[in-house]
Order: sequence, then structure tokens, then C-alpha cells
Amino acid sequence: MPPDNVVFIGKKPTMNYVLAVVTQFNSGNRTVNIKARGKAIVRAVDVALITQRRFIEDAVIEDIKVWTEEVAIGDDERTNVSSMEIVMTIPE
Amino acid sequence: MPPDNVVFIGKKPTMNYVLAVVTQFNSGNRTVNIKARGKAIVRAVDVALITQRRFIEDAVIEDIKVWTEEVAIGDDERTNVSSMEIVMTIPE
Repeated sequence: MPPDNVVFIGKKPTMNYVLAVVTQFNSGNRTVNIKARGKAIVRAVDVALITQRRFIEDAVIEDIKVWTEEVAIGDDERTNVSSMEIVMTIPE
Repeated sequence: MPPDNVVFIGKKPTMNYVLAVVTQFNSGNRTVNIKARGKAIVRAVDVALITQRRFIEDAVIEDIKVWTEEVAIGDDERTNVSSMEIVMTIPE
């Protein structure tokens, strides 16, 4: 199980993930990590910016990290996929 | 005309933009800014990571900024689009 303050971005509508991030902030977390791979990276950026602009105006994007992950796409085949983590924080 | 050390990411194949970034580093620039909007954000991340992993190993991703831009999508309609700038640098 991932820790509570990580939101993994998949293929659902953007607002589903915004709600997940907002819920974590509203339940007392001061930091939420938004993680995505491949095409979902765009959605991760959208989620962070919508959260900040429309719901949690105090939240700041503290850090954005990117790296490459190797993933299996078949029995013998592997490919590289870009990955991202956006760290959002409500400063004390 | 944008300054020489900006590469705008569009819809061309990823390697076209990698080549543009590598060319700017090889022509003496120590900083290259990779900019993208919307779905091209994924490609911008790919370009930065491929440049670093396969061509300019000294280059580091110094900063990643994201923000929202309002763009016209018709005569009267406007929409918000996520934008990104990746700052790549070869440290002295």
C-alpha cells in the first residue's frame, strides 16, 4: 500500500485525481506527492495546477522531479518511460 | 524570434527536439530552456531525459516550472492549458 499522501495519476478523468489531492490536504496532510508515468504526466501537471488555482490556494508546488524508468512491455521486451513526481505543500 | 537557447516542443518526433537541444549545447550554450504546452509536456520531459542519458551526460535538469496559460480556441472562447519550462544546464 502506498502512503496516504501519494496520488498516482492514471487514465481516469482529471477531476477524480484533483478530488483525491484535495481530500488528502483537507484531511490534514501538509504534503501530497503526485506521481505519473508516460502520457499521464500531462494530467499530473493539470491536477497540480487545478488543485492550486481552484481549491487549495495556499498549496505551492515545491518540487518537480523527473526520471526514466525501464518497464516490461512483454516477456522479453523492455522500454524506457519518463516518470514524474510533483511535490505539493501547504507551507506552515 | 525566440532567443537561441529556447526549444519549443511541438508535434514533431521526439528526436527532432533532442537534436535541437544537443545542437544548442554543442554550439556553446551552457543553458537550454525546453518549453511546452498541453500534451507536448510529456515530450518535453522525454527530450530532457533522452538528451541527458544518451548525448550530454554532463547536463543537469536545474529547474522545472509549470503554470497555466489562457489560450483562445475560437473567436469568443478561451481555455486553460498547462505549460512547462525545463531548464537544462551544463554546470561550469
